[in-house]
Amino acid sequence: MELLKRSIAAIQPLNENVHEQANERLANQARPAGSLGLLEPASARLAAIFGTLDVRLENKFIVTCAGDHGVTDEGVSLFPQEVTAQMVFNFVNQGASINVLAKHAGARVKVADLGVNFDFDPTLPIFHKKVGKGTANFARTPAMSRADAVKSVRAGIEIVNDLLADGPVDMLGTGDMGIGNTTPSSAVIAAFSGIAVDRLTGRGTGIGDAALANKIRVIEQALALHRPDPKDPLDVLAKVGGFEIGGLAGLVIGAAAAGIPVVCDGLIATAGALIACELAPAAKAYLFASHRSVEVGHRFIHERLGVDPLLDLQFRLGEGTGAAIAMELLDAATRVLADIKTFEEVAIADAQKAE
Amino acid sequence: MELLKRSIAAIQPLNENVHEQANERLANQARPAGSLGLLEPASARLAAIFGTLDVRLENKFIVTCAGDHGVTDEGVSLFPQEVTAQMVFNFVNQGASINVLAKHAGARVKVADLGVNFDFDPTLPIFHKKVGKGTANFARTPAMSRADAVKSVRAGIEIVNDLLADGPVDMLGTGDMGIGNTTPSSAVIAAFSGIAVDRLTGRGTGIGDAALANKIRVIEQALALHRPDPKDPLDVLAKVGGFEIGGLAGLVIGAAAAGIPVVCDGLIATAGALIACELAPAAKAYLFASHRSVEVGHRFIHERLGVDPLLDLQFRLGEGTGAAIAMELLDAATRVLADIKTFEEVAIADAQKAE
Repeated sequence: MELLKRSIAAIQPLNENVHEQANERLANQARPAGSLGLLEPASARLAAIFGTLDVRLENKFIVTCAGDHGVTDEGVSLFPQEVTAQMVFNFVNQGASINVLAKHAGARVKVADLGVNFDFDPTLPIFHKKVGKGTANFARTPAMSRADAVKSVRAGIEIVNDLLADGPVDMLGTGDMGIGNTTPSSAVIAAFSGIAVDRLTGRGTGIGDAALANKIRVIEQALALHRPDPKDPLDVLAKVGGFEIGGLAGLVIGAAAAGIPVVCDGLIATAGALIACELAPAAKAYLFASHRSVEVGHRFIHERLGVDPLLDLQFRLGEGTGAAIAMELLDAATRVLADIKTFEEVAIADAQKAE
Repeated sequence: MELLKRSIAAIQPLNENVHEQANERLANQARPAGSLGLLEPASARLAAIFGTLDVRLENKFIVTCAGDHGVTDEGVSLFPQEVTAQMVFNFVNQGASINVLAKHAGARVKVADLGVNFDFDPTLPIFHKKVGKGTANFARTPAMSRADAVKSVRAGIEIVNDLLADGPVDMLGTGDMGIGNTTPSSAVIAAFSGIAVDRLTGRGTGIGDAALANKIRVIEQALALHRPDPKDPLDVLAKVGGFEIGGLAGLVIGAAAAGIPVVCDGLIATAGALIACELAPAAKAYLFASHRSVEVGHRFIHERLGVDPLLDLQFRLGEGTGAAIAMELLDAATRVLADIKTFEEVAIADAQKAE
C-alpha cells in the first residue's frame, strides 16, 4: 500500500495564481470573451498545472492497458478472449488504430499488460505488469482479491514512474484493451452511482438486444451478490473491476502525483479515472476527458467526475484513440492562451508599425 | 454570370468506385466496424474526392472573408463596424485567433476583403475583392443589388482560382469576419427554411435579451418587407445576405469545381455554404462541416445541408477557427483509412515475422 498512499499524498493543488493570470489573458484577447469555448478553461487549467502561460506539450505518451475478464464466460462480448493478446501484438507492430492516431497527435504509444490471459515473452517491448491471467468471472466470485486490486493500481503508478525515469512526460493519455471490459466498467459506475444498470450499460463492440439484456442481468446479479461498497473504491475495483481498470486508475494517480495532465479515453479508461478520483479527489484537477463515446454509461462517469468531454466523434473503440485526438485539441489550447494577442498587444504592435 | 455558370457546371461527382473501396477497407480493419465514428465516412469521402485511399492533405488554406453590414445601424451587434477593418489588420499581422489555430493545423490563412467599409492600401497582402463598402441596411432596402450578389459569389470563385494559380490546394477552410454578420446569416437560413426567426437567431458576440429581441424583429421585418424567394438563392443573398457571405458561397463553388474538399466554419461560413449548395447541389459532396457553434441557427443550416459537424467545442468566434481545428481531424481521418491495418494485413505481418 505504501506507494499508493505516498502517491496520493504527493498530489499538489494547481497554481491558482497562474490560473487567474491565464483567465485574465483569455478575457483580454482580441476576440469576444468566451468565444473559444471549451478550449479556454482547458488552456487555463494546463497553465495552472505547469505554472506558466506558455505550456509546451513536447513529450506526449499514451499508455494502453490490457487485461482479460473472466466474465466473458457469460457471453457478454462478441469477441473471444484471445483477441486481447492478438491486439497487444498489433499495438507492438504499430498497425492498430491507436498507433496511427497517436502518431498523428505526436504522441508515443506504450502498451502495458496488466492481466492478459497469455504468457508474453519477457522481451516483448511492453510494460510487463501482469497481476493475473484474466480476472475471475464476477458473476460467481469477486473479480480479484483486494490485494490484487491494490497491486493493479500500484502497477499503473509504477508505469508513470518508469516513463519518468526515461525522460520528461508532458501529457499522459490513458487507453484500454480487453475483451469484455465494458461489462466491469458499467458495473463500476453502477456501484458508485447507484444508477440503474440498464441505463448505463451499452453494446460494447456491438452486441445485439438479447446479449445486451443478458449483460445487464449479469451486472445486476453481480452487484447484488458482492455488494461492493461505494465508499471503498478498492472494494469496487476488486469485486466488479478489472486488472487494466486498476492500472488505468494508477496511471491517473501517478500522473497527478508527478504534476502531469492526464487525458482519459473511453468508457473503460474513464472508469479507471473514476476509481482514481474516488481514491484521490485531488487528482481530478489533472484530469481531462477526451471524448464522449457511443457507450451510454460514459456520460454518467463524466457527470460523476464533473468533467466536460472535448469531443463527441461517436467513437466506441478504446485503445486511447479518443485521447490521441483530444491531445491535438489540448495542444491547440496551449497555443490559444499563449499566442492569441490581447487588445493591448495588438495596440502595441500597431504603434510599433506606425513608428 | 459566365464564371459562376461555368464553375457550377464543372463540379464532378465523386469517384464512387474509390468510395466503395474505402468503405470496404474501413470495414476490414482490425477493430469493430464503425468504431471510429464520424472519422470513417469523412475519410471515405476524402478518398472519393481525391480518387485514392491514401489522401495527403499537404496544402491546406483557410480563407477568411470580411465584409461590413448596414444593418448594424439597427443595433444588432455589441461592436462598432470599425472592428471589421481592425481585425483584418490583426489577421495580416498574424496575431488573431485564426492565425494561431491555422498554424497549429498546418494551414495557411488568406484574408479577403469582400466588402469592408474601409479603404485598404492596395499593397496590403489580402485578396482585394471589394464589392462595396458594406451592404445597405436591409431593414430598409435590399442589402445589395442582384448584380452585386453575383459579383460577390464570383469573387469567391476567383479567390480559389487565384490560390490554384500559385500552387496546389488540397483542402480549403472558409471563415468570416464582419461585425453584425450573424444577423444576415440567420436571415438567410430563415429565408430558405421558413423556420421561425426567433428559433434560429442567437446572441452573436454576446448581446443581451433586449438586443436579441430587437435583432429578431429586424430580421422578421426585413423578410416581410423584401420577401426573398427561397427558390432563387441569389435573390436571398441580395436581399438579406452580405458581401462576405456571397464570397463564402463562391469559395465553396470554386473549390468543388476544382475538386477540392472544403471545410466550413461557423454560422456565417455555413450560411455561405448553404447558398452555394442551393445554387449548386453537386457542391455538397465536397463540403465538410467543421463544428456546431453556440449560435442556435447553426444546426438548422447543418440540417438543411444534411451534414454532421465533427466538433462541438462551444465556439462562437468565426474567422475560420472551427475549420482549422476540424482540419486536424480530417487529416487524422486520412491516416485512419490509409494506415490502420486490416485483419488480412495483420495476418500477413504475423506470417512474415514467423518466417
